[in-house]
Amino acid sequence: MPIEALDQELTEQRLTQLNQALSSGMFVHVRDMLQRMTASDIAFILESSPPRTRQVLWQLVDQEQSGEILEELGEDMKDQLISLMSPECLARATAGMDTDDLAYVLRSLPDTLYKQVLHSMSAQDRARVEQALSYPEDSAGSLMNTDTVTLRPDVNVDVVLRYLRQRGELPEATDTLYVVDRRDILLGGVKLSTLLTCNPTAGIRSIMDPELESIPVTMPDNEVAQLFERHDWVSAPVVDSEGHLLGRITIDDVVDVIREDAEHSMMGMAGMDDDEDTFGPVFKSAFRRSLWLTFNLFAALLAASVSNMFEGTLEKFATIAILMTIVPSMGGVAGNQTLALVIRGIALGHIGQSNSRWLIGKELAIGFLNGLLWSALVFTAVWIWKGDLALGALIGGAMLINMTVAGLAGASIPLILKKLNVDPALAGGMVLTTVTDVIGLFAFLGLATLVLMS
Amino acid sequence: MPIEALDQELTEQRLTQLNQALSSGMFVHVRDMLQRMTASDIAFILESSPPRTRQVLWQLVDQEQSGEILEELGEDMKDQLISLMSPECLARATAGMDTDDLAYVLRSLPDTLYKQVLHSMSAQDRARVEQALSYPEDSAGSLMNTDTVTLRPDVNVDVVLRYLRQRGELPEATDTLYVVDRRDILLGGVKLSTLLTCNPTAGIRSIMDPELESIPVTMPDNEVAQLFERHDWVSAPVVDSEGHLLGRITIDDVVDVIREDAEHSMMGMAGMDDDEDTFGPVFKSAFRRSLWLTFNLFAALLAASVSNMFEGTLEKFATIAILMTIVPSMGGVAGNQTLALVIRGIALGHIGQSNSRWLIGKELAIGFLNGLLWSALVFTAVWIWKGDLALGALIGGAMLINMTVAGLAGASIPLILKKLNVDPALAGGMVLTTVTDVIGLFAFLGLATLVLMS
Repeated sequence: MPIEALDQELTEQRLTQLNQALSSGMFVHVRDMLQRMTASDIAFILESSPPRTRQVLWQLVDQEQSGEILEELGEDMKDQLISLMSPECLARATAGMDTDDLAYVLRSLPDTLYKQVLHSMSAQDRARVEQALSYPEDSAGSLMNTDTVTLRPDVNVDVVLRYLRQRGELPEATDTLYVVDRRDILLGGVKLSTLLTCNPTAGIRSIMDPELESIPVTMPDNEVAQLFERHDWVSAPVVDSEGHLLGRITIDDVVDVIREDAEHSMMGMAGMDDDEDTFGPVFKSAFRRSLWLTFNLFAALLAASVSNMFEGTLEKFATIAILMTIVPSMGGVAGNQTLALVIRGIALGHIGQSNSRWLIGKELAIGFLNGLLWSALVFTAVWIWKGDLALGALIGGAMLINMTVAGLAGASIPLILKKLNVDPALAGGMVLTTVTDVIGLFAFLGLATLVLMS
Repeated sequence: MPIEALDQELTEQRLTQLNQALSSGMFVHVRDMLQRMTASDIAFILESSPPRTRQVLWQLVDQEQSGEILEELGEDMKDQLISLMSPECLARATAGMDTDDLAYVLRSLPDTLYKQVLHSMSAQDRARVEQALSYPEDSAGSLMNTDTVTLRPDVNVDVVLRYLRQRGELPEATDTLYVVDRRDILLGGVKLSTLLTCNPTAGIRSIMDPELESIPVTMPDNEVAQLFERHDWVSAPVVDSEGHLLGRITIDDVVDVIREDAEHSMMGMAGMDDDEDTFGPVFKSAFRRSLWLTFNLFAALLAASVSNMFEGTLEKFATIAILMTIVPSMGGVAGNQTLALVIRGIALGHIGQSNSRWLIGKELAIGFLNGLLWSALVFTAVWIWKGDLALGALIGGAMLINMTVAGLAGASIPLILKKLNVDPALAGGMVLTTVTDVIGLFAFLGLATLVLMS
């Protein structure tokens, strides 16, 4: 058996081969290469290609595989490729899809197309998808698949084994069969490994785990992800408020939620949408980035208007102008460190009512400590550079004030934003930088005006 | 069966109850509460508590459970708690641990303690852990557990079923049994669900998947995570260069890698270590943040020395000083957006030789487009505010230059850093901000000097 070291080098090689074949117009060859790849590998290659290459590749992909490939792609790319497909192609592609992905594809379609696709589906698929569409996005319901295998509590293992052999293949990532009563109320679960290792004469009720934890269908998807992470689950049953089994969530979908949540924090803090496609079209990307840039322009003008208040001082002392960017810059970095820590803590669910005051106190203390250290350093640096003790003391004092404020603001801004139901990952950085810029300039220019102009 | 909605509210409640019981000194009550919780819930509560509470809680935790709890914790916290334990306690706690966690705990111990703990282990555990320690950290080997169940190809399903019943329980997250030959060379895999659904008289060779992909023991852990994500695996076998089965990696450990990698990018970009513990001690945290702050102080002084070159201009025109922070600020934000996108692309393995030139070109184009838009806006804003057409044109021109450079730098800096084997997530932000600050100030002050001082 060949050890398939499908690592980055190999992917690189494939990409290069594909690109060579494409640029020399060997489309039949490319089609052959694609046919030998798995859906997930093709998805990966599509995500690593510029827009034009993507469109060509997508036309060469085997139509049978297109549904599977769509399932593996990021949201932005999925939307792009869906827009290239006819309703008939879409309907065919969606035939074998998991319920959750099917619902996603349909949600993203314009109304007329939506009806066309729904119309060209089988009655069974239509019923499945209409149910999935009834749950809100980002809820356990939207992550759920309905392909569960259920057992009754009053049979024995031997009967189940015979039933399973008759049934044939189990759905992907099945590790547990669910035990339900006549009204579909979830009673417990039996792991496949238990079925394999226990006595065939044992009753299902005696070997099932009655404590099996289930997920309410309305639970937000990030809480579902936390539960999976905390309990190392491979799959978990989803129930409604009365305990009826509705479906199950599997780890592969949860991994996507974890990845998306983490990316959301990272991209959000830099002022980017986490859906943004690395190789997406230029105009769309430029437009998407404008929200933060607009906000930042206002923030920068606000900072400039603070400087404007001290025009007299700046006119008289050019050195003050030269040094005035140092204090806001250090405050910004220190505040951002705290902000990142708190946003991560919020995302992991570690920060709540009971410990947020302690956390703010801790970050305030760190800000003050760092303020002491760096104000001493900058005092020394400026004193040596400009040979002016008073100037050093001025900038040192402003630094201490701004870094302490940065610690306080970095910890409290995301908590306040969360209370106001504003996403701290998206808005936190902008609000914080405005605070540290304004306070930093105020402190330095204000102190300078007080000392030097009197 | 109760639907355990272990969501954030419930955790909040528990934390509050625990804190109340602790502060009123009801330690026996706390011990009882802890005994009723699972290891993963206790780990979560420890991670959400300030240092002093943690120490008290850790002393009240059932010693039998301490190993399991340690397995669930972040690295920083694990180190803290390990330092509180005696070698005997540690040896007892490690008795039931997975090989990978055991190796982690031992790696973090000082030499003398390490030997003491190793000495108080059973011979079997010692052999297991010594093997695990021989693989480098952050490799597939360090993620691997050795608890695989193996089959021979020449038996039939019925024999396997009888063997499994005799054997009893299977290791956690077992979804596939591995087929090996006499020399332990991996031949393929049989899923539990296949064993349950196939004909009992079938031979293992005929039902096994001979194409089962395996992971080389030396593969870096982030590539392992990408493979799991791409192929929706629950577990995968690990082999050496000759194809001998060494162990298996399970999805729960991979989820930790995914989480850590994503956090690394996010925390790194803000100048934080991703190991940093949200509720860690103040002095240690303050110290850990100093690397970036030190670098930033140098960057800020460098920017100030750029302004210093234009002292004459600043002396004559205070308005220039007032406006000079706007250009670097916009360049910094635009550059950081690009940087975040590229760092994510590198982390996901989407960016390589074949597409990096395209990506840099795209980001340069976006930078230029955004530069045109925002230079027009800032030109208008400054013209209106200061009533000076030339000044508006000056700042607009500088903005166009700096935002174009920001697009180019944001895309190329992380790629260059990666080539130099420097972590782009950690160093990228700092290098980029220095570039956009220096170029921004140079462009604005330089243009101003050329136009206004001539």
